[in-house]
Amino acid sequence: MLPFKSLISSHQLTPDTVATIFESAHKMQTAIESKGRVGSLENAIVALLFFEPSSRTMLSFQSAAQRLNAGTIFAQNATSTSFEKGESLEDLIRIVAGYSDIIVMRHAQPGSAQMAADCSDVPFINAGDGGNEHPTQALIDAFTIEKHIGRLDNLKIVFGFDSLQSRSIHSLTRLLSQYPNNEFSFMGPSELAPPPAMISELEAAGVRCTQIKGLPDKLDYDVVYVNRLQEERFADKSIFDKHRRFYRLSYDMVAATQALILDPLPRIDEIDVTADDLPNAVYFQQASYGVPVRMALLSLMLSN
Amino acid sequence: MLPFKSLISSHQLTPDTVATIFESAHKMQTAIESKGRVGSLENAIVALLFFEPSSRTMLSFQSAAQRLNAGTIFAQNATSTSFEKGESLEDLIRIVAGYSDIIVMRHAQPGSAQMAADCSDVPFINAGDGGNEHPTQALIDAFTIEKHIGRLDNLKIVFGFDSLQSRSIHSLTRLLSQYPNNEFSFMGPSELAPPPAMISELEAAGVRCTQIKGLPDKLDYDVVYVNRLQEERFADKSIFDKHRRFYRLSYDMVAATQALILDPLPRIDEIDVTADDLPNAVYFQQASYGVPVRMALLSLMLSN
Amino acid sequence: MLPFKSLISSHQLTPDTVATIFESAHKMQTAIESKGRVGSLENAIVALLFFEPSSRTMLSFQSAAQRLNAGTIFAQNATSTSFEKGESLEDLIRIVAGYSDIIVMRHAQPGSAQMAADCSDVPFINAGDGGNEHPTQALIDAFTIEKHIGRLDNLKIVFGFDSLQSRSIHSLTRLLSQYPNNEFSFMGPSELAPPPAMISELEAAGVRCTQIKGLPDKLDYDVVYVNRLQEERFADKSIFDKHRRFYRLSYDMVAATQALILDPLPRIDEIDVTADDLPNAVYFQQASYGVPVRMALLSLMLSN
Repeated sequence: MLPFKSLISSHQLTPDTVATIFESAHKMQTAIESKGRVGSLENAIVALLFFEPSSRTMLSFQSAAQRLNAGTIFAQNATSTSFEKGESLEDLIRIVAGYSDIIVMRHAQPGSAQMAADCSDVPFINAGDGGNEHPTQALIDAFTIEKHIGRLDNLKIVFGFDSLQSRSIHSLTRLLSQYPNNEFSFMGPSELAPPPAMISELEAAGVRCTQIKGLPDKLDYDVVYVNRLQEERFADKSIFDKHRRFYRLSYDMVAATQALILDPLPRIDEIDVTADDLPNAVYFQQASYGVPVRMALLSLMLSN
Repeated sequence: MLPFKSLISSHQLTPDTVATIFESAHKMQTAIESKGRVGSLENAIVALLFFEPSSRTMLSFQSAAQRLNAGTIFAQNATSTSFEKGESLEDLIRIVAGYSDIIVMRHAQPGSAQMAADCSDVPFINAGDGGNEHPTQALIDAFTIEKHIGRLDNLKIVFGFDSLQSRSIHSLTRLLSQYPNNEFSFMGPSELAPPPAMISELEAAGVRCTQIKGLPDKLDYDVVYVNRLQEERFADKSIFDKHRRFYRLSYDMVAATQALILDPLPRIDEIDVTADDLPNAVYFQQASYGVPVRMALLSLMLSN
Repeated sequence: MLPFKSLISSHQLTPDTVATIFESAHKMQTAIESKGRVGSLENAIVALLFFEPSSRTMLSFQSAAQRLNAGTIFAQNATSTSFEKGESLEDLIRIVAGYSDIIVMRHAQPGSAQMAADCSDVPFINAGDGGNEHPTQALIDAFTIEKHIGRLDNLKIVFGFDSLQSRSIHSLTRLLSQYPNNEFSFMGPSELAPPPAMISELEAAGVRCTQIKGLPDKLDYDVVYVNRLQEERFADKSIFDKHRRFYRLSYDMVAATQALILDPLPRIDEIDVTADDLPNAVYFQQASYGVPVRMALLSLMLSN
């Protein structure tokens, strides 16, 4: 049982709820490895609405639904749908709720997830609403940390390189701020520093936050969580190029630390590919946990 | 048993055939509510070819096939397929008939459905061919009327606001013209009045038809069936804007009538959203009936 | 059991391997006809990645996976995925291998299939990599020949009209060059003659190769294998138009020969549609064999 009908924000992912979801996710992973598929949602239809380009999130939700033997209905890109005829999101959600038992949606507009959930007669999962939230990514990130480190409290984590507009960082820090004694550092270009409101919220929740100029001398953390710099956020391409060359984890930096290296992916330049085989470079495992975690979530939300 | 291999036009939807489909659709709806999915097509593959943007029709056919446990194969948008290499529709249909047990197609070209069905070795369903026909929408509309009013004859219905190029209105009026004592009125801008050939056909079938200038003073009908005005049909945007402000159902208009309010959707401006919660505003229920009605149709056509 | 984890090139399709696949494909075809679906992959997830427009290959792989009751996850077009964010193919494949049990990929870049297979932890099937290879098409073509003629050796085959950049012709000639006593002729515009390296490779394998100027007087072959001329390969459109009018099989040419007429499709102008009903015009049957052949391949590769 989960205490919500729809998952919009990682504010909802309290330690108790996270524990319930991870207990199920561990079972799902065992089931994938031993049997491949688990018939627990064979009577359900999962609607997957991806109105923004996606590969990992879309494919792992597809896989999660298929591994649960659910039926899936699928719409991708506003231009392939009646959206281009001017229909409202509210109307579309009301209609899709009549076709399915749960709706998963990615949408470019911050706040669209709450708006959609409010219209939906069936449970709703936010699979990313613009730069706002991506709570299932936060669950996957936390699952990876717990699996490899064994706890979600008493962690020293450095985040970079774009903490400003990353829904993944927003959602993960929010989730982890509900556990005691966490300490977050933020590294990256000053243009992409975390928004002050985010820092205030984290500090109010008891998290110690520091901002680092440039890169730390030593990656002396439990977790190093990096994401890509996005070219379109820089008016001056020469500044972007300079940052892009500077803000990346080299083989030597990853090899010199015990820290768990996480990346929500896609990876552009932020981690050198030569580091991929190092034992603490677990970002592809992190991606693969998307399937059992999303299976657990779909299954629990539909058994409510 | 249905008396046809392929469904192209609502001319084929005689009262006997409609009764057979609705009997099955009622059972499908009960099955959805009690069990979620019904294994009756678990050995079939349904091909869904959507060569024109769609959301409701596409998603509800996906849902119908999935709720029947059928496999689905799916192609969307000509630009994603070999069509852009210059292949003919006839060739593509012959090929897809070799991959599947039934084909559902939406295509922008009026007449394409008949052409495709003529090439197909397997049953074929027209899911909309340009401005021509949309017989499964007519079935859903009629199912809604029968469910809420209890009959398909002796009805007074007003249609608007674009009766000229609406395949939904063409198909529904054709279906209902096969029942006795129906009376149709058409409201809307004169540019979008029903084509004379359609009126002649309906009158030849015994339907009394009238055209209304502007909006009727009172919505004194059994059913009010409205659709959106499409901007691209107007050369002069100021005329479009004027019509768009005028031709819409307000909360007060919907509240003042007992008439069932139907809309094939998407809705743009033709019904004020404040009217959505009124008991006679059943257009979202109407949309949801797409699943059981299409389940019934797929199931009956494949049991032929 | 197949002697490979991934299928990249028809070099791997030795006579023993082909025999194993065809034995299974015949059983699959019988199962399709008698039951529709075969539950042999109901615990597997098949990833279908189509990064280039496709209809036949995509839809027949979908159908093959569905007829085996496998789950499918599906991404189409780079523009709908994170590819446009600059992610590498290697990263995407590593991620998708974590979501699925086998990957099928079409990609415009020659050599991309090998690169992807090298990164994949799960079996991988090349569904066409640019102008390079299309080994599953070669299997389907060979299956058609064996089914209708009864052998894959001692064949006289003429190929045309574009032998230069056709991955289907490259892959089929490679497959058949592993059987004794085959003789290949190539017809078509000199601009589209087979590349010298391909002829050298075939001759080294023992195939007699000849090139024909224009069209042969008589289609005195066991098999006539034709494909379309692609306009974009000609700088001078008037030359293209001249070739296009000249290089096509008319009704009379097809009626005058006993040769099996094959075409990997899509067909543009290379065979007159009036020839379609002649008994030796088997290209639509050829397309339909895509389903049992791909079912056999998926099933054998996943039972390894």
